[in-house]
Amino acid sequence: MNDTFLKACRGEDVPYTPVWVMRQAGRYMAEYQAIRRKYDFLTMCRTPELAAEVTLQPVDKLGVDAAILFSDILVTLEAMGKTVVFTDGMGPVIEDPIRDRAGAEALVVGDPQADLSYVLDAIKILRAELEDKVPLIGFSGAPFTLATYLIEGGSSKNFLNTKTMMFKEPELFGLIMDKLTDSVAAYLGAQIDAGAQAVQIFDSWAGALSPQDFETHELPRIKRLIEALKPKGVPIIYFANGAAGMLGLVGQCGADVLGIDWRIKMSGAAEQLGQDYVLQGNLDPLAMFLPEEALRQRVSDVLKGASGAKGHVFNLGHGIVPQTPVEAAQALVRAVHELSRRG
Amino acid sequence: MNDTFLKACRGEDVPYTPVWVMRQAGRYMAEYQAIRRKYDFLTMCRTPELAAEVTLQPVDKLGVDAAILFSDILVTLEAMGKTVVFTDGMGPVIEDPIRDRAGAEALVVGDPQADLSYVLDAIKILRAELEDKVPLIGFSGAPFTLATYLIEGGSSKNFLNTKTMMFKEPELFGLIMDKLTDSVAAYLGAQIDAGAQAVQIFDSWAGALSPQDFETHELPRIKRLIEALKPKGVPIIYFANGAAGMLGLVGQCGADVLGIDWRIKMSGAAEQLGQDYVLQGNLDPLAMFLPEEALRQRVSDVLKGASGAKGHVFNLGHGIVPQTPVEAAQALVRAVHELSRRG
Repeated sequence: MNDTFLKACRGEDVPYTPVWVMRQAGRYMAEYQAIRRKYDFLTMCRTPELAAEVTLQPVDKLGVDAAILFSDILVTLEAMGKTVVFTDGMGPVIEDPIRDRAGAEALVVGDPQADLSYVLDAIKILRAELEDKVPLIGFSGAPFTLATYLIEGGSSKNFLNTKTMMFKEPELFGLIMDKLTDSVAAYLGAQIDAGAQAVQIFDSWAGALSPQDFETHELPRIKRLIEALKPKGVPIIYFANGAAGMLGLVGQCGADVLGIDWRIKMSGAAEQLGQDYVLQGNLDPLAMFLPEEALRQRVSDVLKGASGAKGHVFNLGHGIVPQTPVEAAQALVRAVHELSRRG
Repeated sequence: MNDTFLKACRGEDVPYTPVWVMRQAGRYMAEYQAIRRKYDFLTMCRTPELAAEVTLQPVDKLGVDAAILFSDILVTLEAMGKTVVFTDGMGPVIEDPIRDRAGAEALVVGDPQADLSYVLDAIKILRAELEDKVPLIGFSGAPFTLATYLIEGGSSKNFLNTKTMMFKEPELFGLIMDKLTDSVAAYLGAQIDAGAQAVQIFDSWAGALSPQDFETHELPRIKRLIEALKPKGVPIIYFANGAAGMLGLVGQCGADVLGIDWRIKMSGAAEQLGQDYVLQGNLDPLAMFLPEEALRQRVSDVLKGASGAKGHVFNLGHGIVPQTPVEAAQALVRAVHELSRRG
């Protein structure tokens, strides 16, 4: 098996910088669209064979060094007793958003074996399929990010309901956050037990929090989550999106790898965090629309910028956008491998 | 006249930290809503008496140290030959978004005297009304932020069209950006000539750019804009939203005051920029929903954080949200004045 990704996550020497792409199993691939035309998004998430199939698509097509399970950060909420609805062209909708104590108390800590077995089954299929290929990454949303969906009922511009509860009823907000933390810990633990060889905690909305609120409400739970998962022995990646102004706090989380978005130079992130962390990222996803020579130059800049860190896993600074030409994704992987090869 | 704001902008000693609030003339005020019920948003922007009236509302009601002209960052585009449509509950729509050379060439450099005289007339009314009160701030959108609306045709999630043009047709993108820069320079210059005593350049979407693209495409134009306006002798505020990870670059712009959003601790921003710049900001707008004692503690933290800077103008880190209780805005202003009073 190509274990470059796992070695890089542990800060070990690697012959070249490994690369994977956030949302690499996604709409920019014709093979994905062919399946998506036949099934709706949630059916794909819930059917192990389909989830496994689209997870595998980019592995050969792009030549990435890791596969990431095809799923959605919100499936965790279904194990907590909530119903999530995806509608084409709209953001996800969570029915009966939580606005009061009764709602928070009705929330159960998810039992992944009982309610998310389809994810665990997909992981088992994938480990067999990937045996001679690349490692498999599992993932979940982070507590705060999941809390915003639970409380807003969907996407949000300024997180009015979430922050109002956080500010006016911190104890109630804390109850929801704690149940989410326990659910995510159980979910990621079960993914690892089922075979995931690394896990990523996606904190898509961490950047909506001021550093002070991140430190008070989210960081302690991220630490607790990571501590709970550490004994399982697989690399843990924490990606706090929009957190360029509070990397000092993010760097207290204790993960093995920190995801860095594209809003800061990789060299600047490495300067702040590089002795303690392997960094993952951080090319602007829209840079995939650059002509190939310019794209290679950007790749080279990110590689050089990360050279001050403990290690580097190349990735975009956020998910690949559906309009990206697949040839650009292939060129990206080629460029990372060629430009980073040692000796 | 209360000139605390202007003195603070120049880095001079002030008896207390002045405060104003982004979007202080807005929907959170019952007086504003009473007028808004009678007129649509663009009519309010285009009618000098109405724009002046809502501009004045928060001055007495909140006791802020500056008034900011009621208008919209997109009115500049109307002087460039574009039609902007505002629909309740939806974002603004720009008709015929620019996607090719013909569109870029058809764009005219705005003549504010001819096409934005309603703004200049509002400023003249306001200067007379504010004579014994507080200074008047004028404003415009920044070139990149305006370019996103011109090219996307409205709001955008990932700025696909804008960045695709920037990456694939940099010369064409540059033509649009240069016309915008010239238009904004003329517009802000005319506002100052009409009586604006300070101007703010709102770069709401600067944070969508990677540091490298900000440095290549936006920073040189912001510098040019500021150089063009400097001889007029009024303080220039540059607010690059979402730029916490690239403050080193923002700090090359040459403005008098830099706006700081809430995604970084004020003390951290002051450490990076404080010798050269007066800083403006940076309370999380949603912190207005905190109980008053906790709000005062946050105000105190921001004041302390800014103490390392050349000077400080208190503000939120982004616009006040419509659901904010007006009492909270009043409490904010009171807290800033009380907690910052010297001697």
